[in-house]
Amino acid sequence: VTLEFGASRNNIPAISIHPERLLDDLRTLAEFGKTGPGVNRRALSPVDMQAREWLADRLREAGLVAEIDGVGNVIGRSPHARRIVIGSHTDTVPDGGWLDGAMGVIYGLEVARAFMEAGGNGPVGLEIVSFSDEEACFSPMLGSHSYTGELNREVEFARRNENGTLLADAVRAAGLAGRAFARLDPLTHPVYLEAHIEQGPVLEARGIPLGVVTSIIGLRAWLVHFIGQADHAGTTPMAMRRDAGAALCDFAVRIADFCRGMGSEQTVWNGGNIRLIPGAHNVVPARAQYTFSARDPDMEILDRIEQRVMTLSSTVSAVHNVKVEATKTSSIAPAAMHPAIVHMIGEAAKGRGLTAMEMPSGAAHDAMVLARHVPVGMVFIPSIGGRSHDVAEDSTPEDIVNGAHVLADTVTALTRSLQQV
Amino acid sequence: VTLEFGASRNNIPAISIHPERLLDDLRTLAEFGKTGPGVNRRALSPVDMQAREWLADRLREAGLVAEIDGVGNVIGRSPHARRIVIGSHTDTVPDGGWLDGAMGVIYGLEVARAFMEAGGNGPVGLEIVSFSDEEACFSPMLGSHSYTGELNREVEFARRNENGTLLADAVRAAGLAGRAFARLDPLTHPVYLEAHIEQGPVLEARGIPLGVVTSIIGLRAWLVHFIGQADHAGTTPMAMRRDAGAALCDFAVRIADFCRGMGSEQTVWNGGNIRLIPGAHNVVPARAQYTFSARDPDMEILDRIEQRVMTLSSTVSAVHNVKVEATKTSSIAPAAMHPAIVHMIGEAAKGRGLTAMEMPSGAAHDAMVLARHVPVGMVFIPSIGGRSHDVAEDSTPEDIVNGAHVLADTVTALTRSLQQV
Repeated sequence: VTLEFGASRNNIPAISIHPERLLDDLRTLAEFGKTGPGVNRRALSPVDMQAREWLADRLREAGLVAEIDGVGNVIGRSPHARRIVIGSHTDTVPDGGWLDGAMGVIYGLEVARAFMEAGGNGPVGLEIVSFSDEEACFSPMLGSHSYTGELNREVEFARRNENGTLLADAVRAAGLAGRAFARLDPLTHPVYLEAHIEQGPVLEARGIPLGVVTSIIGLRAWLVHFIGQADHAGTTPMAMRRDAGAALCDFAVRIADFCRGMGSEQTVWNGGNIRLIPGAHNVVPARAQYTFSARDPDMEILDRIEQRVMTLSSTVSAVHNVKVEATKTSSIAPAAMHPAIVHMIGEAAKGRGLTAMEMPSGAAHDAMVLARHVPVGMVFIPSIGGRSHDVAEDSTPEDIVNGAHVLADTVTALTRSLQQV
Repeated sequence: VTLEFGASRNNIPAISIHPERLLDDLRTLAEFGKTGPGVNRRALSPVDMQAREWLADRLREAGLVAEIDGVGNVIGRSPHARRIVIGSHTDTVPDGGWLDGAMGVIYGLEVARAFMEAGGNGPVGLEIVSFSDEEACFSPMLGSHSYTGELNREVEFARRNENGTLLADAVRAAGLAGRAFARLDPLTHPVYLEAHIEQGPVLEARGIPLGVVTSIIGLRAWLVHFIGQADHAGTTPMAMRRDAGAALCDFAVRIADFCRGMGSEQTVWNGGNIRLIPGAHNVVPARAQYTFSARDPDMEILDRIEQRVMTLSSTVSAVHNVKVEATKTSSIAPAAMHPAIVHMIGEAAKGRGLTAMEMPSGAAHDAMVLARHVPVGMVFIPSIGGRSHDVAEDSTPEDIVNGAHVLADTVTALTRSLQQV
């Protein structure tokens, strides 16, 4: 699906958001499931559903037709045949922050409200979505997978949350059983936009108020399991050992050297966990498990790292006289944002006198799912201290408002210039 | 205390052991606490005490005066003013092997029995000891610490075993309260001898039936704790991370390189355990704990390794922008065997037509404690597959008998040549 632009329809008014109304709505939403400065709104929980009902009411007040669909997605539609989709999610991780997801949804509400107040003119309207269970309580990105038709409901509805509750039962308990499932249609929905806090330290560290996401980085994760032999750490000569722990550390240092040597600032990697068995001070480790992952916007770089994980684990295991099993545990393809939208967001920032930088998103978002179906753009604002998935997550009111202005201006440009079908 | 030899008193008969009687006694002892092919005789447990009573009876039958002392040491003394001490222990680790400790004690019993049968002539006799709790049920090497006067009874009697039982209560329950504590006296006891299974793979791998221990290697252990910062593994650029796990792996590889570079075949080291916190695939490790130990017969080499652990942990932490705390958790000095006894054991092996090799002991033994007080010698025999501290621990009857012959011949030589006081 390509994005086509026509002559600018300058008769369509600019969307002018109200900063105080935006911040008030954000603060009100944060009252649902409030815990200290953060919030706890696990997907489909009573408080998550209360927040979604509240949102649906606000969308209706803004002049949209709003519903909650069969998986908990909140959708508000303007009365236009074609609609730019603006979305994110209002569910949170346990004891999460007040902005992760919520900010992008309330931006959508405020932009739609301002658009409708200005007359809602032109051939292109808005559709505001709060996706369900982005934070993987039952099924990661449940809402956007359902919205894009990617969801295998039979499989996913049989999943359970951390309390053992079936998704199917949670949907029923939320009063959603039998409801229709809202669906994306590229002919109806030419573009998806999502604004989000960065959830990282880059914008703040550089003093830049706005990030234009160029891609959501892909992920590969492996469990590299070295299998040696438990021996007495005093009586077994070094040359006779089959030390799985030494093999692991050797592998860890060498795969990090390789990733560093790729020379890309955007390549990141992590050895998140190590387990040695038996893990006793006087026993040579018989087994060593390494949880390693790498992320990059470029699929080819991920392919090269994967190749190296396989060859290096094999080389290292031969050096240390151990066996190895390297298993890929996760593979998520990078998702490119649409260049035309990246450009428009940059122009919108410039128009507001804001420095913007193009950057990858290191975290996953519903936009990653949507990007497989329609052109997508994302706006980032700085996270204080880079913190997220924590009650301490925060951004300055100024940055929040600036981000909303840039999103609104981008929507203005799109409503004026998107080619009519 | 030096060891002085005089002219050989060749009128003293050679000690001639009975192989079948030796093996029968070993097999009978293995019935106490038998578990599959192994045994479970935790120190001062009812079955450990039954085995000790059985041993005391056998020592009496052999013509010795036997007692069990106030910590559970079994001591059998021949009626000589000076006595060569032969010992080891009859307690075991949980589900341990049938030879660890037991073999050295039964060697002592058989050598004493054969010595007394041959008349028990000469100025030097024998004292056979089964030390209590070598295997650290309450207090590691309790019996030899008590025997050498190293035990702080007030402190150690307040220790508890894995069931929470106080050592003082276990001693009382074993009927030992109020008994005297047997003591080593260098004037009475000129030499201590201990035979043991190797508990390692070296003798078997080289096809050598007898090891002459030159020293019991010393140990240093450290907990090296790197303290970084938990960050999102996708959104935090590499240059901004403080990755405690990466620092740990870097340290592990570099300290191993250093130890390898010392160029001694006798230096061994082990990274027995690693703990990363929080240990999640998508979080940069905030804390990383490394359990590292090194062993060597040479104290100076241990000192150099310790120096390097300190400087390298500091260097690596600077490179990775983390903090580090390196704590020494254990320090055991190496114990040298007496060169004259090492030589005599080698000669005894030669006399039996057995190839012998000089080697360090990688495991600790009661001999390590005794070596601080009197000249000590140790005999090793091969362990099948190097296995120990396991019910599968075993040695061939031929190797067991050969070891006893070598020990007996060494005792013969000592009873003939030890200088009279």
